[in-house]
Amino acid sequence: MAFGPAAMGYDRAITIFSPDGDLYQVDYAFQAVKKGWTTLGVKTKNAVVILGEKKQSLLVDIDSVEKIFLIDDHVGCSFAGLASDGRVLIDYARNSSLQHKLIYDEPISIDYLTKLVADVKQMYTQHGGVRPFGVSLIIGGVDKGTPKLFMTEPSGQFMPYLAVAIGENYTTATEFLQKNYKDDLSVEDTITLAINALKATKQPGEKLGPNEIEIGYGAANTGIFRKLTLEERNDILQKLG
Amino acid sequence: MAFGPAAMGYDRAITIFSPDGDLYQVDYAFQAVKKGWTTLGVKTKNAVVILGEKKQSLLVDIDSVEKIFLIDDHVGCSFAGLASDGRVLIDYARNSSLQHKLIYDEPISIDYLTKLVADVKQMYTQHGGVRPFGVSLIIGGVDKGTPKLFMTEPSGQFMPYLAVAIGENYTTATEFLQKNYKDDLSVEDTITLAINALKATKQPGEKLGPNEIEIGYGAANTGIFRKLTLEERNDILQKLG
Amino acid sequence: MAFGPAAMGYDRAITIFSPDGDLYQVDYAFQAVKKGWTTLGVKTKNAVVILGEKKQSLLVDIDSVEKIFLIDDHVGCSFAGLASDGRVLIDYARNSSLQHKLIYDEPISIDYLTKLVADVKQMYTQHGGVRPFGVSLIIGGVDKGTPKLFMTEPSGQFMPYLAVAIGENYTTATEFLQKNYKDDLSVEDTITLAINALKATKQPGEKLGPNEIEIGYGAANTGIFRKLTLEERNDILQKLG
Amino acid sequence: MAFGPAAMGYDRAITIFSPDGDLYQVDYAFQAVKKGWTTLGVKTKNAVVILGEKKQSLLVDIDSVEKIFLIDDHVGCSFAGLASDGRVLIDYARNSSLQHKLIYDEPISIDYLTKLVADVKQMYTQHGGVRPFGVSLIIGGVDKGTPKLFMTEPSGQFMPYLAVAIGENYTTATEFLQKNYKDDLSVEDTITLAINALKATKQPGEKLGPNEIEIGYGAANTGIFRKLTLEERNDILQKLG
Amino acid sequence: MAFGPAAMGYDRAITIFSPDGDLYQVDYAFQAVKKGWTTLGVKTKNAVVILGEKKQSLLVDIDSVEKIFLIDDHVGCSFAGLASDGRVLIDYARNSSLQHKLIYDEPISIDYLTKLVADVKQMYTQHGGVRPFGVSLIIGGVDKGTPKLFMTEPSGQFMPYLAVAIGENYTTATEFLQKNYKDDLSVEDTITLAINALKATKQPGEKLGPNEIEIGYGAANTGIFRKLTLEERNDILQKLG
Amino acid sequence: MAFGPAAMGYDRAITIFSPDGDLYQVDYAFQAVKKGWTTLGVKTKNAVVILGEKKQSLLVDIDSVEKIFLIDDHVGCSFAGLASDGRVLIDYARNSSLQHKLIYDEPISIDYLTKLVADVKQMYTQHGGVRPFGVSLIIGGVDKGTPKLFMTEPSGQFMPYLAVAIGENYTTATEFLQKNYKDDLSVEDTITLAINALKATKQPGEKLGPNEIEIGYGAANTGIFRKLTLEERNDILQKLG
Amino acid sequence: MAFGPAAMGYDRAITIFSPDGDLYQVDYAFQAVKKGWTTLGVKTKNAVVILGEKKQSLLVDIDSVEKIFLIDDHVGCSFAGLASDGRVLIDYARNSSLQHKLIYDEPISIDYLTKLVADVKQMYTQHGGVRPFGVSLIIGGVDKGTPKLFMTEPSGQFMPYLAVAIGENYTTATEFLQKNYKDDLSVEDTITLAINALKATKQPGEKLGPNEIEIGYGAANTGIFRKLTLEERNDILQKLG
Repeated sequence: MAFGPAAMGYDRAITIFSPDGDLYQVDYAFQAVKKGWTTLGVKTKNAVVILGEKKQSLLVDIDSVEKIFLIDDHVGCSFAGLASDGRVLIDYARNSSLQHKLIYDEPISIDYLTKLVADVKQMYTQHGGVRPFGVSLIIGGVDKGTPKLFMTEPSGQFMPYLAVAIGENYTTATEFLQKNYKDDLSVEDTITLAINALKATKQPGEKLGPNEIEIGYGAANTGIFRKLTLEERNDILQKLG
Repeated sequence: MAFGPAAMGYDRAITIFSPDGDLYQVDYAFQAVKKGWTTLGVKTKNAVVILGEKKQSLLVDIDSVEKIFLIDDHVGCSFAGLASDGRVLIDYARNSSLQHKLIYDEPISIDYLTKLVADVKQMYTQHGGVRPFGVSLIIGGVDKGTPKLFMTEPSGQFMPYLAVAIGENYTTATEFLQKNYKDDLSVEDTITLAINALKATKQPGEKLGPNEIEIGYGAANTGIFRKLTLEERNDILQKLG
Repeated sequence: MAFGPAAMGYDRAITIFSPDGDLYQVDYAFQAVKKGWTTLGVKTKNAVVILGEKKQSLLVDIDSVEKIFLIDDHVGCSFAGLASDGRVLIDYARNSSLQHKLIYDEPISIDYLTKLVADVKQMYTQHGGVRPFGVSLIIGGVDKGTPKLFMTEPSGQFMPYLAVAIGENYTTATEFLQKNYKDDLSVEDTITLAINALKATKQPGEKLGPNEIEIGYGAANTGIFRKLTLEERNDILQKLG
Repeated sequence: MAFGPAAMGYDRAITIFSPDGDLYQVDYAFQAVKKGWTTLGVKTKNAVVILGEKKQSLLVDIDSVEKIFLIDDHVGCSFAGLASDGRVLIDYARNSSLQHKLIYDEPISIDYLTKLVADVKQMYTQHGGVRPFGVSLIIGGVDKGTPKLFMTEPSGQFMPYLAVAIGENYTTATEFLQKNYKDDLSVEDTITLAINALKATKQPGEKLGPNEIEIGYGAANTGIFRKLTLEERNDILQKLG
Repeated sequence: MAFGPAAMGYDRAITIFSPDGDLYQVDYAFQAVKKGWTTLGVKTKNAVVILGEKKQSLLVDIDSVEKIFLIDDHVGCSFAGLASDGRVLIDYARNSSLQHKLIYDEPISIDYLTKLVADVKQMYTQHGGVRPFGVSLIIGGVDKGTPKLFMTEPSGQFMPYLAVAIGENYTTATEFLQKNYKDDLSVEDTITLAINALKATKQPGEKLGPNEIEIGYGAANTGIFRKLTLEERNDILQKLG
Repeated sequence: MAFGPAAMGYDRAITIFSPDGDLYQVDYAFQAVKKGWTTLGVKTKNAVVILGEKKQSLLVDIDSVEKIFLIDDHVGCSFAGLASDGRVLIDYARNSSLQHKLIYDEPISIDYLTKLVADVKQMYTQHGGVRPFGVSLIIGGVDKGTPKLFMTEPSGQFMPYLAVAIGENYTTATEFLQKNYKDDLSVEDTITLAINALKATKQPGEKLGPNEIEIGYGAANTGIFRKLTLEERNDILQKLG
Repeated sequence: MAFGPAAMGYDRAITIFSPDGDLYQVDYAFQAVKKGWTTLGVKTKNAVVILGEKKQSLLVDIDSVEKIFLIDDHVGCSFAGLASDGRVLIDYARNSSLQHKLIYDEPISIDYLTKLVADVKQMYTQHGGVRPFGVSLIIGGVDKGTPKLFMTEPSGQFMPYLAVAIGENYTTATEFLQKNYKDDLSVEDTITLAINALKATKQPGEKLGPNEIEIGYGAANTGIFRKLTLEERNDILQKLG
């Protein structure tokens, strides 16, 4: 951290505006997101896919680490940033989905679910005595046959995406997706595109093992969001060579 | 950000007065508004129109991004500034409209609706532990056959307007509107005026696609506020060349 | 803002005393009042008049801008300073008047109404976590045949006045009133005095249009406080030339 | 305000002790008292008198300005300092008197009434988030035939007095009272002593008009505290020449 | 106040520990105690005496100033420091005594009463948003035939004493008491010892008038704590010459 | 603590983000963990073992010091860092387990238990007026025949582990575990591995007494988590030589 | 207090972590403990003894000063540090014991009682708006025939001890105890060891009077914790010469 004119205190205490209209605490929270493992989502006509990288670490029981979270039968999510912050929001998403189903007797729409989560984030950027959530979420699923994909930022802002990447290598992955995205891919090809986007962040020749990624996907024709098993991931990675 | 006598702390913590009687946090929130996408409203004898620009961005599913928000059958709104702050106020506006209809069995007047939203904003400029809303709203609709148009600032101040523009290119759009505004335009011509005001902010020859704008309008004779479909926007832009 | 010994922090955070026994935040709030549009009140034996200037601004629907506010049948008010702060106090005044009528079955006295509003202001100068109201109110009306006129400051202090001016040109208007005030004017002459006081703040030859002012008045003989229509304002301004 | 070792922050935020055991915010509040209009009280065997000066100001309806406040039939009060702070305490005193009469069916004693008011003041010097009251009160009346006179400071401290002066010229008025006080004066002479004490603060030859003062008094034999009418004040001032 | 390494902020805001384990706000509150009028207590086998000095001041109705406060039939108290803080604690002591008598049908023990008062003081040294009480109390009385004497400090610490002095001349008075204290004095001699201790703080030849002191005492044989009348005080002072 | 650019205040007051996206208070809490006694956990197919070192200290009744805490029949835990913080979380874990059993009539899963504890930790890193917990917990047990092992950090982050060490010598112990870990060890060999990992942190030849460690283990075949007795620990240490 | 790099603010406001993982306010509170009178506890197979020194001070009624506090029939305690803080915790301990007996109909265990007190201390080190307790407590008693001895620090940490000393001379007393402690002492010898430990802190030849100490002890065979009378203390000191 270099010396310089710096932020002169606009970034302390509670989240307040700087003279430029920025919320520094929100910008800093975004730095925490950039330190997370690379995570990405792809949406085509036939499927939505969420892929999360899991970095191997000696003695960590990596197979038990969860990176893709099922919210409801039709929707899942992943995140990059502070894992403990992410957990709080995923709990909130799950409870919201459950309550919605109980009250209205139909699954929550993914737009509305994303808005609920993002509204909690916004609240933590406008009121004192709290800090923003240091986490970006990718939420994906299938609403009545239509794949949906959203990403929410620490500010509470969210956008619908065709494809999106967050975490440490998000620029490389995003560039790959911008070049290779097509919206008429099959379910399998959508998954392959997601894997290749992550591979693009690796050194040439570097291998990607089946326990280094988690993949969830929702198919337009089934309307179900499920996670690939270790076997399935292995099969796909084998085929990709 | 240059060095200098600066604000010496009058712009920190909670929203307090500077020796000049200014509320710096409110002024800074206004800078956030200036960074938003250009948004504008036009009111004539026959119609009120709200137009919001949607900036294309690779991989963003721009068609799913909403920029004009229906509040009730007769009123809509748009905003410039922090999107997540805007959402909070739109939720509040929708709830207020709904409750009004339930309690009084008639649609909320647009003056009163605007006042309710602006009162929330004011509260966030006078009490500690919160920051002002970093968003300006344009609220427009038809009250018993009369088009209405308001704009609310981060301070909670609001004014009735004939035409108004907010967001990054608001000065250029405002100048265009000042020169070309007439109050006896037809519904179609009112829409055209709004589109041309946005076009005035573009480079000569730059094209404006139908998915780069959202348009909502209320016609005096119907009393209904509705959004133009992609097709309708396309047709109009075609005619305008 | 010049450098110098300055206020050394006595004007921050909550409203506290400086070594000189001043409340700086209250003094600064007064600066906000000085930036408001000129507003004035005149009280004679026969009438009380409140006049508010409305500054023309391109594209603002100035005719829909309200500057004189009816509180009850016998009392009205205007303000200079932060419009959104003023609105909060006017709402409070209206609610207080309504409740008084409901509970005691008689109109609220103007002294008491003014005290209620000023007490709210005082509260915001003595408790933490809030800032003072950046607004001065002129409250006028007729109590059982007697015209009354008060002005409340941001501190919560209020005084009864024969004539009073607030806002940007208050010194010029006050000087004019000091020279020309008489207490045995007719209703019409009281209105004329108010208009001339505002005219005194203009350049010689500068015209004052009927939509650049709003005027409310209470006549001793009727006990009713009402606002002049555009037509009435036009007629008076015509006569005055 | 000169530079120097100064208060080094012991006088900020909430009311806390300085290394010398002083409460600076309370001392500063006392400065606000010194800026108020001169107010004084005199107690003799036969009467208690409270006199408040009212400074003429162009266009202020000085006759409607109240400076002596009746609390109950047997007790009145006046103050110097922040008028809006004074009002809060007078409201409290009136409510306390009323409740006492309702609950115990006898008038509140003046000692106890003073203690109640002073206890509120103390509370505002020991708890955070508030500032002390910037006002000193003179409370006087007749308890079962005995005149009583108290003065309460911003600290919440109060003392019984034979005679006391507060506000801008309190030193001159106090010196006059110290030289001329006698406790066996008639009601009329007690009033005269009070007027002369105020006159002592004027330039030689300077006149004191009947609408420049308000006077309240309680006579031992009646037990009633009442205010002199304008006529009565005029008569007395005439006699004094 | 000299310059120097000073307290570096450990004495601000709320009551917190300095690196030396001191609570500076509590130490500073003790300075306020040292500024109070000299007050002292003496306990012998036969009596407990509390004596408070009352400093004459022109125009103050010194006879009405109370310095010894009866808490219950068997116990009284006095204080040095901020009078308004003292009043709060005396009210608390009186209420506690009354409640104890109502609930348990026997007088409160003086140990327990002192503990209750001191616990309130402690609370104000450990929680934020308040300042310590700037007052030391001497509490004395007779518990079932045994005289008791306690002194509580601003910290909430209290000790049982044979004799104790607080306020501006406490060192001189304490020295006198240390030299002359005996525990087998009669009631009268105990009172005399207390008066002589105060006299020791005066210039040689300086007279002490009966209205310059208040004296309360509890006799072991009666168990009653009462205050000496002006006559009684005069008689005693006469005898002492 | 060296001088330098330092943290410039991002690490004060409440837990807020630094420009790098770090939560300094959470990082500092981690330093407290590093000062704790070495504690470690090992999970194999057949068992999970938690071992805590207890440092001898003269006059401390070391045998009564508890380092391994039973949460429920199937799960235990230990910690490194601030012991009093650890106690709070262990109480919470025990209550959560108990309630789970009462409500659902089956033992709490170890994943869920760990999440509950970690969620409390997260809360203390995002809200004002509190500091993070200065403690890391190792939680281990047997879920339906499967050994489980987790470690939670002060941030609220937690991970499943094959083996993990925390406290002052965690790097040496971790290196030993990385080299020697195998997942097909018997219960006894798992315990031995844990003891050897601690021994690796000692000087060559340094003895480890049976009262210098506490050991808890859960065997896959029994599903019970129990603590070794002093005798059992002695026997094992004897065998190991 | 020397100048130097110092604590740079990590020790202000609320209790937060320093970069080294320390809680400075807790460390400073420990300094307050070091200023208290020497207090010590000894536990053997047959007894637990708590001894508190009482420093003579002129005019203080030292015989009425309590230093050993009975919590319940089987448990007592003493403390070093801020006496008023200690009182709060002793009240809490007594209430907890009483409630336990009422609810469970058996005496509270000393482990659990200590934990309850220490948990209160912990709470005051983790939440804002309070300071830690500036006091260490020694708690001792007999649980079903087994003597127990604990000491709790300002941090909320507590440990079981064979012998422990706190307060100003704790190092000398501790050294003495380390050299002379044996666990098979009789009740009398345990008391003697405690007295000798205190004597070790005195100058050679310095006498220790029976009213300079208080002693409480619990005997394993009776299970009762009681305080020695003045006579008993005198007898023992005589024997010791």
